[in-house]
Amino acid sequence: MNYPLDKLAKVLNGQLNDKGKNPEISGIAPLLEAKPGEISFFSDGVGKQKHLEELKQTKASALIASEKAVDLPLPTICFKNAYVGLARALELFRPEYRPKPGIHPTAFVDESAEVHPTAIIGAHAVVEAGSIISEEARIDSGAVVERGASVGKRSRLCSNVTLRFGCTIGEDSIIHSGTVIGSDGFGFTPTSEGHLKIPQTGNVEIGNKVEIGANVTIDRATMGKTIVNDGTKVDNLVHLAHNVSIGKNCLIIAQVGISGSTTIEDNVTLAGQAGTVGHITIGKDSIVAARGVATEDLPPGSIVSGFPCKPHSEEKKIMIALRRLPELIKKVRELENKIDQKVEK
Amino acid sequence: MNYPLDKLAKVLNGQLNDKGKNPEISGIAPLLEAKPGEISFFSDGVGKQKHLEELKQTKASALIASEKAVDLPLPTICFKNAYVGLARALELFRPEYRPKPGIHPTAFVDESAEVHPTAIIGAHAVVEAGSIISEEARIDSGAVVERGASVGKRSRLCSNVTLRFGCTIGEDSIIHSGTVIGSDGFGFTPTSEGHLKIPQTGNVEIGNKVEIGANVTIDRATMGKTIVNDGTKVDNLVHLAHNVSIGKNCLIIAQVGISGSTTIEDNVTLAGQAGTVGHITIGKDSIVAARGVATEDLPPGSIVSGFPCKPHSEEKKIMIALRRLPELIKKVRELENKIDQKVEK
Amino acid sequence: MNYPLDKLAKVLNGQLNDKGKNPEISGIAPLLEAKPGEISFFSDGVGKQKHLEELKQTKASALIASEKAVDLPLPTICFKNAYVGLARALELFRPEYRPKPGIHPTAFVDESAEVHPTAIIGAHAVVEAGSIISEEARIDSGAVVERGASVGKRSRLCSNVTLRFGCTIGEDSIIHSGTVIGSDGFGFTPTSEGHLKIPQTGNVEIGNKVEIGANVTIDRATMGKTIVNDGTKVDNLVHLAHNVSIGKNCLIIAQVGISGSTTIEDNVTLAGQAGTVGHITIGKDSIVAARGVATEDLPPGSIVSGFPCKPHSEEKKIMIALRRLPELIKKVRELENKIDQKVEK
Repeated sequence: MNYPLDKLAKVLNGQLNDKGKNPEISGIAPLLEAKPGEISFFSDGVGKQKHLEELKQTKASALIASEKAVDLPLPTICFKNAYVGLARALELFRPEYRPKPGIHPTAFVDESAEVHPTAIIGAHAVVEAGSIISEEARIDSGAVVERGASVGKRSRLCSNVTLRFGCTIGEDSIIHSGTVIGSDGFGFTPTSEGHLKIPQTGNVEIGNKVEIGANVTIDRATMGKTIVNDGTKVDNLVHLAHNVSIGKNCLIIAQVGISGSTTIEDNVTLAGQAGTVGHITIGKDSIVAARGVATEDLPPGSIVSGFPCKPHSEEKKIMIALRRLPELIKKVRELENKIDQKVEK
Repeated sequence: MNYPLDKLAKVLNGQLNDKGKNPEISGIAPLLEAKPGEISFFSDGVGKQKHLEELKQTKASALIASEKAVDLPLPTICFKNAYVGLARALELFRPEYRPKPGIHPTAFVDESAEVHPTAIIGAHAVVEAGSIISEEARIDSGAVVERGASVGKRSRLCSNVTLRFGCTIGEDSIIHSGTVIGSDGFGFTPTSEGHLKIPQTGNVEIGNKVEIGANVTIDRATMGKTIVNDGTKVDNLVHLAHNVSIGKNCLIIAQVGISGSTTIEDNVTLAGQAGTVGHITIGKDSIVAARGVATEDLPPGSIVSGFPCKPHSEEKKIMIALRRLPELIKKVRELENKIDQKVEK
Repeated sequence: MNYPLDKLAKVLNGQLNDKGKNPEISGIAPLLEAKPGEISFFSDGVGKQKHLEELKQTKASALIASEKAVDLPLPTICFKNAYVGLARALELFRPEYRPKPGIHPTAFVDESAEVHPTAIIGAHAVVEAGSIISEEARIDSGAVVERGASVGKRSRLCSNVTLRFGCTIGEDSIIHSGTVIGSDGFGFTPTSEGHLKIPQTGNVEIGNKVEIGANVTIDRATMGKTIVNDGTKVDNLVHLAHNVSIGKNCLIIAQVGISGSTTIEDNVTLAGQAGTVGHITIGKDSIVAARGVATEDLPPGSIVSGFPCKPHSEEKKIMIALRRLPELIKKVRELENKIDQKVEK
């Protein structure tokens, strides 16, 4: 479906700066791939320099951009946050494919499971005894929902996800492929006959509007629950240990590891490859920078980096100072010599 | 099933401190979730402060605790190691569900595979040609046992595990969901036509009473074997490269990576996100702290941290000294000035 | 099949140093496992010390080695690069098993998918609508090829791989078990109602002769493509974010994470557990050492390590200097005292 630019601006709820033109827009594509008649996206933030270069070569007929971006050479639909405009345009022009509701003939659904008639169960998916698949939920090919687990309305388990027994997914959540929810926590205690396994008998509860990346692992609690609260987004290959509690609207970037019984409060960001020890609390609105390791409780609003993590401003000073360390050692040796000479005189 | 506390103490083989009461115990739950009639767990070690707070609010009727914990406000079953008591109580009150033996009608078992009648093969599981599934072993939904692989007595592959061709699992071991055992080692050699693949033709052998976490990867040997010995426990998202050999009763915590042909001797602990280079030996009873990277052979009993790893006590001193580095640079500059002034005089 | 050593040298295209013998060779095995009549491998590089020890005990009848290795006690087939000889011998003596072409009766192949008659589709594999499986390609047990995806000639998806919709694999490539290609990129933007998902509507394109390890995650682009070019080899548990572009013949070692929109040019090596921030370019022929983190563009031929990464030679000096830091702090304090005393005089 095509949209004249002025109509598109209204549909996307953006501000039109039409530069006297009103091209017909048929799709959206990156700057270097866009054809005439397509709209593209200009980032005013990260990647701006690259986008400025690409603008010179683009064949796009219009742009989506921040209202702060000036001097753009094409008609532009402006947004306070350009990414909101991008999200709306992608939904409009590239809507997600959705199979028809129903259970694929090769899927296995136990007769004691409840699958809503509007749900979609893919090829070779497994829905074990007593589990619940709600309205418009989607279990893709090869995914396994073990006994007594449940998936809320409109939530999706992508292909080859494993949702283990008794774990629950809220509404409007997405779990990406290969992810395991409800594996046993790493609980052992030393005995004279070796490491004794402490049975892991709790579960995992994922809230609403949560997104969990691919090949993530979230362990079930020893007793009680491991929790990921509403609105939190978790990237690929993250490890959440048993009895961890993640607050609302957190961002947990790829390859982060969170040790057992640690609490992450609301709106916390843990950047890539960061980590925490167990049994601590990261206060709300905190940021742990990439590779940072939280080794003790952090008050709300902390911005930390390094291992063990420190206030980010301090860590930056240390990082800069480090590069001068070899020279400093020399300098101190010279000072010693000077002083010794003076002393000798 | 309910137990009067005095009987429960006997069943669990603990020491009763009944404070003059003998409540009927119907289950076990964490301190804040326990209802009257339930027993709970008090940790004297990590998390003690939190547990002391929770004790004030608990509705539990009794506790499991260390014999060192004193002044507890409730009747207590005491253990030298409280976690042993916890493990026993969880096994008693929350026994693991076990499906009936047999092959699920949707599973595929090759006619040349041997599946013991007491084994359990789940929905859509695959057991390829020539593989062996022993007494009471369990292959859960969607798991794949490739040709010529074997799973020992009472061992379990959880849902969506991949056990690749020719690899073997001993007895009483658990492999958690999403884990891949027997992927090709990363073996390439540079040639004028690019990286030439060195065929990876060995296998992986997992011992008895081993537990491997979720989404772990263990590569097969180029020739010979990659080995994980009896009693070792491996956490989630760990990478063991080709020809690695892990000793008995090791603990390999989440997101550790061990490079090719490295030997880890018995009773070694590698804490979270640690790593090793290839072709080295970590002596028995050693500990590599979280994020530590072993870059050369370590003698038995080493306790190391940092990258490259050093004796932990040294690394700690460096970590403390680092925070004083920016100030040190200033101080040396001041000293220089002082000296130069003196020299000029 | 057996080969007299002189014939084997010709078949493998190596240089024979027969020490006056011509044993019949029936197989290949590691030094300590080889039986009389088998050939083994001697590494002149990493692991040489261990191999020299093992040579004393080996029962092998001949060796494959570098032409630089001298004084070996057995007849030897020599190669400029011994690993090339090893690769050829392993292919000869331990050829890969290959099932007969065809679709396993338990596989699900959508009627609109194109599967070449020479392709192999394993048990419980899924090939969704509109996807293409080319000549001699192989989709192993439990692997899922979502709608509109394609797998080129002779390429292989190992058991339980997930190839998501619209993604493409070139020719002669191998994707190891548990890997997810085409999961959504981590794209969200903050709004007053929480993190808004930016639809991820691009795809992933994997080139020819690429190998991707186990439990890797490669996210689809927001728009456009995430790319892994010809000849690149990726190890286990690696994360490639959306819109990443990896050049030709790169080596990406285990547990590396590459952030969104970053470009890795040709022939780059990223060693174990390394990382990059997003939106940067790593110039061709660069090496990022283990654990290194690239935080800005790197010119071609860079050799860097550390976080943030620096020229490797500089980082090494810093690492050495660090061990002297605690002592340096003491020394500066002593100097201060000396100077103060002199000043007082």
